[in-house]
Amino acid sequence: MNGAESLLKTLVNNGVTTCFTNPGTSEMQFVAAVDRVDGMRCVLCLFEGVASGAADGYSRMSDNPPATLLHLGPGLANGLANLHNAMRAGVPIINIVGDHATSHKQYDAPLASDVAAYAKPVSAWIKETARADEISADTLEAIEAARQPPGQISTMIIPADCSWNQTSVISREKAARPVRPKVSDEAVRNVSNALRKKEPAVILMGGQALLEEGGKLASALSNHTNARVFSATFTARITRGAGRTNIERLPYFPEAVIRTLTGVRHLVVVGAKPPVGFFAYPNLPSYLVPEDCRVHCLAEAGEDAVDALARVIDELDAGSVSPTILPLKKPALPVGELTPETISLSVAALMPENAIIAEESISSGAGLIPATATAQPHDWLFTTGGAIGQGSPNAVGAALACPDRKVICLQADGSGMYTLQALWTQARESLNVTTIIFANRKYRILDIEYERVGAGSPGPKARAMLAIDNPEIDWVKLATGLGVMACRVTTLAQLNRQLAIYIAEPGPNLIEVIF
Amino acid sequence: MNGAESLLKTLVNNGVTTCFTNPGTSEMQFVAAVDRVDGMRCVLCLFEGVASGAADGYSRMSDNPPATLLHLGPGLANGLANLHNAMRAGVPIINIVGDHATSHKQYDAPLASDVAAYAKPVSAWIKETARADEISADTLEAIEAARQPPGQISTMIIPADCSWNQTSVISREKAARPVRPKVSDEAVRNVSNALRKKEPAVILMGGQALLEEGGKLASALSNHTNARVFSATFTARITRGAGRTNIERLPYFPEAVIRTLTGVRHLVVVGAKPPVGFFAYPNLPSYLVPEDCRVHCLAEAGEDAVDALARVIDELDAGSVSPTILPLKKPALPVGELTPETISLSVAALMPENAIIAEESISSGAGLIPATATAQPHDWLFTTGGAIGQGSPNAVGAALACPDRKVICLQADGSGMYTLQALWTQARESLNVTTIIFANRKYRILDIEYERVGAGSPGPKARAMLAIDNPEIDWVKLATGLGVMACRVTTLAQLNRQLAIYIAEPGPNLIEVIF
Repeated sequence: MNGAESLLKTLVNNGVTTCFTNPGTSEMQFVAAVDRVDGMRCVLCLFEGVASGAADGYSRMSDNPPATLLHLGPGLANGLANLHNAMRAGVPIINIVGDHATSHKQYDAPLASDVAAYAKPVSAWIKETARADEISADTLEAIEAARQPPGQISTMIIPADCSWNQTSVISREKAARPVRPKVSDEAVRNVSNALRKKEPAVILMGGQALLEEGGKLASALSNHTNARVFSATFTARITRGAGRTNIERLPYFPEAVIRTLTGVRHLVVVGAKPPVGFFAYPNLPSYLVPEDCRVHCLAEAGEDAVDALARVIDELDAGSVSPTILPLKKPALPVGELTPETISLSVAALMPENAIIAEESISSGAGLIPATATAQPHDWLFTTGGAIGQGSPNAVGAALACPDRKVICLQADGSGMYTLQALWTQARESLNVTTIIFANRKYRILDIEYERVGAGSPGPKARAMLAIDNPEIDWVKLATGLGVMACRVTTLAQLNRQLAIYIAEPGPNLIEVIF
Repeated sequence: MNGAESLLKTLVNNGVTTCFTNPGTSEMQFVAAVDRVDGMRCVLCLFEGVASGAADGYSRMSDNPPATLLHLGPGLANGLANLHNAMRAGVPIINIVGDHATSHKQYDAPLASDVAAYAKPVSAWIKETARADEISADTLEAIEAARQPPGQISTMIIPADCSWNQTSVISREKAARPVRPKVSDEAVRNVSNALRKKEPAVILMGGQALLEEGGKLASALSNHTNARVFSATFTARITRGAGRTNIERLPYFPEAVIRTLTGVRHLVVVGAKPPVGFFAYPNLPSYLVPEDCRVHCLAEAGEDAVDALARVIDELDAGSVSPTILPLKKPALPVGELTPETISLSVAALMPENAIIAEESISSGAGLIPATATAQPHDWLFTTGGAIGQGSPNAVGAALACPDRKVICLQADGSGMYTLQALWTQARESLNVTTIIFANRKYRILDIEYERVGAGSPGPKARAMLAIDNPEIDWVKLATGLGVMACRVTTLAQLNRQLAIYIAEPGPNLIEVIF
């Protein structure tokens, strides 16, 4: 057994059975070991940002963390933007980054770099393996660190000789599964006391609290106290739709957050942080909680939010209060023009039961969340860290984690161009993904932000930098060039018809919506 | 004037007049300022790896450094791989990275990150501007640091408020242009003494030494001393072809380097480093200089190599010795099968005068260098740092730096997929680039490396990770989907005909060669 086999066996023994790969020479022993060690599914990606974004999507939808296989510092660097998103999502990922052989490092060969320095901004745990005999123990540590609630990124740096050298060492023990710590009685009491007053209150949730159980507890609490329940604006995953409970989404722009929170006296955060502006703007505050609103933290991101919500309900003697379960109430198929709103209604009407929505629709998506509130039950994956190019890779990962579910990827065109290589992996793995490209041919969000930062009215050069219509991008060619069936629609009737067809088919497929 | 205008004016005043951009909200003031300050050409890229790779290509072909405009930590992260290549190329680039407003940082908004940490592995100079009044002085410092020979990467971090706040401060002075220091008399004497012996010697050159003047001096020296002249395997730019002198290229694989240097007693390095393996392999040395060969450093990368070569010639009283100027001797148009060798001959036969070759052909390119030795005069841009996805972005930058010259991009398919968005910028800017895609539908180099690292014979899972033929990528669709005219050739006769047509046209255009 060489080091690579020891690594691979330890991963598989601990339930890490999917690896998103973009290997090079330093990772060839790992690649070779995959044929000798059962149980690892390797998913080839043509660019590392696809691998890391797919790992993020997989991790959001799976109980087991995925791995990535990346090629030295620059390979890791290409994956960093989506690792930043995964870090903000709070999900576990184990990066396996090959490096030059230990004895080779002193020579500063062209690809040599400080891999740990690249890893630092996104990783909670980083270790360079010293020798093949230590690779298994290091892997256990990496898995355990990744599992630290809510989920973290571990980066293993594996010099090539640690992979090719022989070892007999393999850890028999399993990596620990750290449990979420319970919140303190004091936190429960404080929040209970605040909500008991029945003053205007908001419960702002993130992370684990936004899955089915947390949603039901929060809804019961809301019914008992009149507190409104919101999700953080950018969060890893919400379980929603018919059969679930109503969770509003906190808006994006600071003015809207301020309006939403005006008059609120208590903000209870549950696995979320008090809201701040995504960006700062001249003459607007960054911290968006009203001055006379008290913030009460019920649970930090890594704490047991579900248990905490249940204990607040107990403390308030509200155990008999039911949550409000939403009925299935799909909108009718829309008629009229193609607009972000009518596209949202079309998606809401046609979304199949149990779909996973990987959404990076940026400015085009404003209407999606309200339109789908009572659609078929589904999971929604949001962008999290603001690094664009997340949607299509997330869809790859989600589809691999949940092969029995339809994934619908709602993808803006500008951000979709960062990681369009994801389509190839969708085709290669026959993933059940239907992508809608919102082809407004603009960085539309920047049109909006341009004015908001006080830059006035864009001149011709500025306008040219906000538009991506010269030349026009043909997503049908891009998708079919990468092996994904695709079509373009230019009317709402076409969209309604084509989306129904593509959702009924196994995928992958893609609809470019020109509007 | 706001900070962004002060920044922009200072750049333009100092000859930094091309900026490869992928801006977001934090850079909107810069975008706005471009319409108010004359003289900056902004080139929009759809992915930051294109922007950084284009900056590299531009810098290799221009006397003035380019800038990039990138969006916070993750935007910079997407550019890092090609910045690693630029760092290894030793070229000046000024990164302008927007960041959150100073007052906003404490809130850890979703896009917040340690921008300086991302910048560190590739930047020789990093500074976060403290206020708008300091932005002009910081810009001067950044330019000066970038110009430090042989060329370095400067990263300016500009909080949004430093861009939008008003300032009246602008530096009237110009950034210094550091000159290359002359080498010591001792270095000249040592090298002269070594070469005087007429023992087997190699002159290994990199950087500035590989431009026309250095090549001629080295050739004269070679004629006088019988030393063979080589270029480093991976180097930023070589001026070569008819009318220039013969410079062999040091091979890639260690065994071949060792064979080449066997029996050599003196290795004179001129702006290059003694050769080491690109990767380490079991049972092969990393350091490839024979034990009985003495290494003599004539010039470090940043020193004046041309002056040093001239002084050695003086010291040897060889001023009357002429260099060997190569005649124009193009190969005949090849006949037969499409192979890497015949493709090389086709390129060599059809290359127009004064072309720039941006080459990332990886395993397909072995025959290119010998085939083109006496082709029309041209500049060759090599991959440098081993981070793939360099070719097409380099071509963008070279074409912008030299609008009167044809750029031929020789691009492997696997590596081309990392930064295919470069084609869109080629179309947008009507760049005179003809791209040849070597579509072998494999990571062919990994096939080779797999065996070399002692991984044995690949099993089915490993083989699947080395092939990119499932699904087959259609580069004609990808290129035309991004606005670039394209065709596919499957015979050598088609290639000969189509390449002649595309070279005669202004471009951009692309030929997918299936072989």
